[in-house]
Amino acid sequence: MEALRNAACTARSTTMMMLVWIFLNAVAGLKAEGGGMEEELVTEKEAEESHRQDSVNLLTFISLLTLTILTIWLFKHRRVRFLHETGLAMIYGLLVGVILRYGIPATSYHNKTPPSCSLKEGPSSTLLLNLSGKFFEYTLKGEINFREIHNVEQNDMLRKVTFDPEVFFNILLPPIIFHAGYSLKKRHFFRNLGSIITYAFLGTAISCFVIGNLMYGVVKLMRAVGQLTDKFYYTDCLFFGAVISATDPVTVLAIFNELHADGDLYALLFGESVMNDAVAIVLSSSIVAYQPAGANTHKFDASAFFKSVGIFLGIFSGSFVMGAVTGVVTALVTKFTKLHCFPLLETALFFLMSWSTFLLAEACGFTGVVAVLFCGITQAHYTCNNLSEESTKRTKQLFEVLHFLAENFIFSYMGLALFTFQNHIFSPIFIMGAFIAIFIGRALNIYPLSFLLNLGRRDKIRGNFQHMMMFAGLRGAMAFALAIRDTATYARQMMFTTTLLIVFFTVWVFGGGTTPMLSWLHIRFGNGKRFQDERCQHGKWEYSRVGVDPDQDLQPSGDSFQVLQGDGPQDEGQSKTKQESAWLFRLWYTFDHNYLKPILTHSGPPLTSTLPSYCGPLASCLTTPRAYENDEQLRDPNTDLIHNDADLTFTFGDAAITTNGASTSRTDAARGLGWSANGKRIGSTSEEALERELDSREQELLSRGTRLVFPMEDHV
Amino acid sequence: MEALRNAACTARSTTMMMLVWIFLNAVAGLKAEGGGMEEELVTEKEAEESHRQDSVNLLTFISLLTLTILTIWLFKHRRVRFLHETGLAMIYGLLVGVILRYGIPATSYHNKTPPSCSLKEGPSSTLLLNLSGKFFEYTLKGEINFREIHNVEQNDMLRKVTFDPEVFFNILLPPIIFHAGYSLKKRHFFRNLGSIITYAFLGTAISCFVIGNLMYGVVKLMRAVGQLTDKFYYTDCLFFGAVISATDPVTVLAIFNELHADGDLYALLFGESVMNDAVAIVLSSSIVAYQPAGANTHKFDASAFFKSVGIFLGIFSGSFVMGAVTGVVTALVTKFTKLHCFPLLETALFFLMSWSTFLLAEACGFTGVVAVLFCGITQAHYTCNNLSEESTKRTKQLFEVLHFLAENFIFSYMGLALFTFQNHIFSPIFIMGAFIAIFIGRALNIYPLSFLLNLGRRDKIRGNFQHMMMFAGLRGAMAFALAIRDTATYARQMMFTTTLLIVFFTVWVFGGGTTPMLSWLHIRFGNGKRFQDERCQHGKWEYSRVGVDPDQDLQPSGDSFQVLQGDGPQDEGQSKTKQESAWLFRLWYTFDHNYLKPILTHSGPPLTSTLPSYCGPLASCLTTPRAYENDEQLRDPNTDLIHNDADLTFTFGDAAITTNGASTSRTDAARGLGWSANGKRIGSTSEEALERELDSREQELLSRGTRLVFPMEDHV
Repeated sequence: MEALRNAACTARSTTMMMLVWIFLNAVAGLKAEGGGMEEELVTEKEAEESHRQDSVNLLTFISLLTLTILTIWLFKHRRVRFLHETGLAMIYGLLVGVILRYGIPATSYHNKTPPSCSLKEGPSSTLLLNLSGKFFEYTLKGEINFREIHNVEQNDMLRKVTFDPEVFFNILLPPIIFHAGYSLKKRHFFRNLGSIITYAFLGTAISCFVIGNLMYGVVKLMRAVGQLTDKFYYTDCLFFGAVISATDPVTVLAIFNELHADGDLYALLFGESVMNDAVAIVLSSSIVAYQPAGANTHKFDASAFFKSVGIFLGIFSGSFVMGAVTGVVTALVTKFTKLHCFPLLETALFFLMSWSTFLLAEACGFTGVVAVLFCGITQAHYTCNNLSEESTKRTKQLFEVLHFLAENFIFSYMGLALFTFQNHIFSPIFIMGAFIAIFIGRALNIYPLSFLLNLGRRDKIRGNFQHMMMFAGLRGAMAFALAIRDTATYARQMMFTTTLLIVFFTVWVFGGGTTPMLSWLHIRFGNGKRFQDERCQHGKWEYSRVGVDPDQDLQPSGDSFQVLQGDGPQDEGQSKTKQESAWLFRLWYTFDHNYLKPILTHSGPPLTSTLPSYCGPLASCLTTPRAYENDEQLRDPNTDLIHNDADLTFTFGDAAITTNGASTSRTDAARGLGWSANGKRIGSTSEEALERELDSREQELLSRGTRLVFPMEDHV
Repeated sequence: MEALRNAACTARSTTMMMLVWIFLNAVAGLKAEGGGMEEELVTEKEAEESHRQDSVNLLTFISLLTLTILTIWLFKHRRVRFLHETGLAMIYGLLVGVILRYGIPATSYHNKTPPSCSLKEGPSSTLLLNLSGKFFEYTLKGEINFREIHNVEQNDMLRKVTFDPEVFFNILLPPIIFHAGYSLKKRHFFRNLGSIITYAFLGTAISCFVIGNLMYGVVKLMRAVGQLTDKFYYTDCLFFGAVISATDPVTVLAIFNELHADGDLYALLFGESVMNDAVAIVLSSSIVAYQPAGANTHKFDASAFFKSVGIFLGIFSGSFVMGAVTGVVTALVTKFTKLHCFPLLETALFFLMSWSTFLLAEACGFTGVVAVLFCGITQAHYTCNNLSEESTKRTKQLFEVLHFLAENFIFSYMGLALFTFQNHIFSPIFIMGAFIAIFIGRALNIYPLSFLLNLGRRDKIRGNFQHMMMFAGLRGAMAFALAIRDTATYARQMMFTTTLLIVFFTVWVFGGGTTPMLSWLHIRFGNGKRFQDERCQHGKWEYSRVGVDPDQDLQPSGDSFQVLQGDGPQDEGQSKTKQESAWLFRLWYTFDHNYLKPILTHSGPPLTSTLPSYCGPLASCLTTPRAYENDEQLRDPNTDLIHNDADLTFTFGDAAITTNGASTSRTDAARGLGWSANGKRIGSTSEEALERELDSREQELLSRGTRLVFPMEDHV
């Protein structure tokens, strides 16, 4: 009853807001028309009008976001799951797009074609206009298609609503991607790292080439039936493949989170989608870089191909190093200063350093978004251990809000763009072909790779997991941002339109079908372990009891995005690779644990105990008093990290273990020596743990047990 | 010892960062030069270079901010108080400005004058360039002085570092001003509201006209001695008066905060500076609006004057209404939905609604910054009571970080602008005149108004307070933003240069001299009550014990910006106006408490008990279950608000009271009836409380007492 009244209220406020917005738009339009009367102050007036129009446009999006938020609340309130917030944002965007396009008369207050002047020289970034002695400065906006000159002026407002595509890349994507990286520090993620990297790199490459080749076939078909007259090269097809290979299962993951679906499946999907975004960006820019070398033949050219591969590797590793280095620098700064006494300064520093990664990478010619991703991962892995508790929460919440706003903005914009973008090219054959191609591309990514991975994994990726991964191949923000980045040519415009439709379809249909699909595939949820992506483990938080899930969020708020759930068994769906395949990883782990963590953070064993004795002075200089404290007191606040990490290693080691109830020798573990011993000691229990059917009552008991243990932490 | 090592570390990282940044800049420059070789892809390359250069520039500022943060930490760590973070930011900005100007060879990779073309028609916002069939779109940047054409191209990088002034108004000021408004919900503020408004409106107007007239004299003098050849009208002088009347005692207030200086003085200074920012903006735009009416005579014209006054009132009230309405809408939305279950949604909504105020006001032709200020006040007064505890913290922290970053950015930019801005006009006479004028203007603002106010105040604004207010007339971000907004004419350029120097001088000298000045004026600190500007009172927080300062921050973090201090006596420096002058305010208070608060928030008495009986159905529809609960349970979580508000009323009422230790009848208070009774009952104690010398030991006891009371809250 009350919910109904609330719904009515929301609907009313929704309508009201829309009306207000339409009124404002109309006013702006009218005023603009009125302003056109005088000739004298026309420039100043135009600038003012332009500013006002910009405000109205931004207001449009903000109203859209506000509406979306209110409706999300309503949906959450009533536990509606068939439509996710991103889908909702798109629907609102579509509605406003329709109104903008058809509802408002084409005001076009200066629908005269703009004055043009001719020059012999090449275009420069600045142009001066000499107007009877007065000089006006103009800046280059870009090349414009002749066809567009009239189009553009046809309805100025529509054009205004269309943002500069670079806004997506430079403003909206970084917080989204950083947030993804920052929330990756999860046992489940690292446990499945091998598989995730395989899917992300190899899988995305497969998907890109499969889709590219299939689409080339479609293009040939279109040319054969006379549906295509303009240029459409093979590289364009490959580019489309790269663009559309970036998956974004945000809808699916939100539902997983709500239903507490399987943690490993969550980790696989989340990790894959985060990583393949990075791969898709670099892949697409490598393909673009391939283009000019072919000199219009666009045939296969071995040297150009290898050059592209080189570019791919160069950009990827460069961005990776950039991100990692900034993360490491932040970790060092936060370790060696006492900034943690001032959470505001700490948060600001963290934010600035993370942002500077993006700019640094862009300034050096690498890809900022990719750098930001790895920066996020490094920050979560190292810096987070140095931050004060307050800052850990602040940074998490700050990026959460930014991520939320940016994501919903992109999805609203997508809805809007379907109607306001001026150069859509709807080609039914191309669209149908693309739908089939992405399906095939996804299938050739998931199934063969899963088969190969299963050869090496002890805990196989089962059939129903594979089907779910296949199903969760939604396309989202990244595909859109890549597609809108360049819509100059006919081919690119067709791709953009198709991408938009694919995003709509997959988000609505696959996103909405997640819950039925989960039941249909018999993927357990509700009692499984939830993979929580919203906090970073903090060494200082003293709930690091064996048996308490360190992924658990302590925050006792009413935030139902993060319902607390103390779950006992940690071994479900634990992946196990063969020991021999893990030596590299184990080497890295030992190095990380013994040297990197102690150098970069307050956690881990003191360097004095891990470094050879001749490095003594250096080691004692780099070790902070806090690290000694941690080591001396046996109630090491970082035990959870160690256990956690140890756990991680085990899975790449011989046997899967459960840290649950296992009383490991902490000092040994802290010295990074305990893992193999432990791995063997508890190896036997792991086999039993493979049985997936756990009595839920027992689990609850365990869960309660962990909570009871909680306040006693200090007495250990 | 360790601090020294830390300092050395910071210094090293500082140097390193500067080197990195210079290297990057050089690389960008070199690459740009290399890029100029080819002619074919020159536009694309230029666009890329421009993007890269933009990244480097932003990186410059981010490095500056990072450096500032690290040095702030160092200063806080060592309790250095002679230089505030804003002063520091300016110094770093200056250093980088010097390097940019003199350290780097003028790369100017396209130092040829840009191509220009002639047209007959007036300039339009878009210009097309026909280049042998290819069309390029250019957008208008603005009129350019002929003198500048060569200047501009002389060193492209310097020009690039110069941001679009509108960035300050549309991006950097709103969070600063919103934060100021959002942190105004303080007893001390409302207690001194009358005085604050007097200083802000009347005082700023006096200051503006005094400075304007004095400067007109200076301009005449300059013309007489032949130092001024260009135009400089009376309205320009008035404009300068408006620009430079916006005070920004952020440095002083930070030190007040640290030293726990007198709460009322803090409130007077903080309130005045926040309000006079708004007044200065609107005043300056009214003066600009006055200009064209005079048609180049720039003499006094009564009709134009009244038109300007009308514009002032129109813009001010329009912006006020805009801000208040958005705040009220947000309050209603948060009240009638159950958004508080989802802090992320709530925070996002809050952020969006607050931002939309700005856009809405701009779209309607009002002043966004002013609207945002009043929106912040409304949000703090109403919406804050509906938010969940989590969201209250989140919103506070979010705006705190934004405010911090924006403010430090502006101050670094100021330092930078002294060397990178291309059109400085240093006129010694004008600058000297301006320094004298602002001194006289401030004096004629503070002393006469204080005299007038003291006629009405029972708790006089004493002489040393007046001197401190005089001394605290620093100029900051707002003066700079107003001055940089338009630097097209000679007069404006001279004003900009002068404003910059005034800001530097006042922030460094007056800001640095705050601590000595406080001792010299015998203004007590350390045991006085601290006026805390960093949280909003929340009805749900159950520390609303009589005797506990509701301004106290609960947050038990290590944030030393907000050191906890439970202080007993609340009556120091309490202002008392005569009863007759307060009836209007009391009327408003009763209305607000009985109707607005219950309608807009969950706090206050249920409407069913305050509205006449025939409004019964409406009242019960508008009252939420939470409000009934609050009323029914005698341990009303809103008691602190009520006491707080009651306290506020008393000061406008007959007698000053101390809520400390006064066991008021809460149900009565909750019905808004208790205040007069209380006011009389405790009236006697207030006189004693006027004695300012309080035994600090006693205070500590009281303070401890309040902490002990704290956990027993629930049992009352």
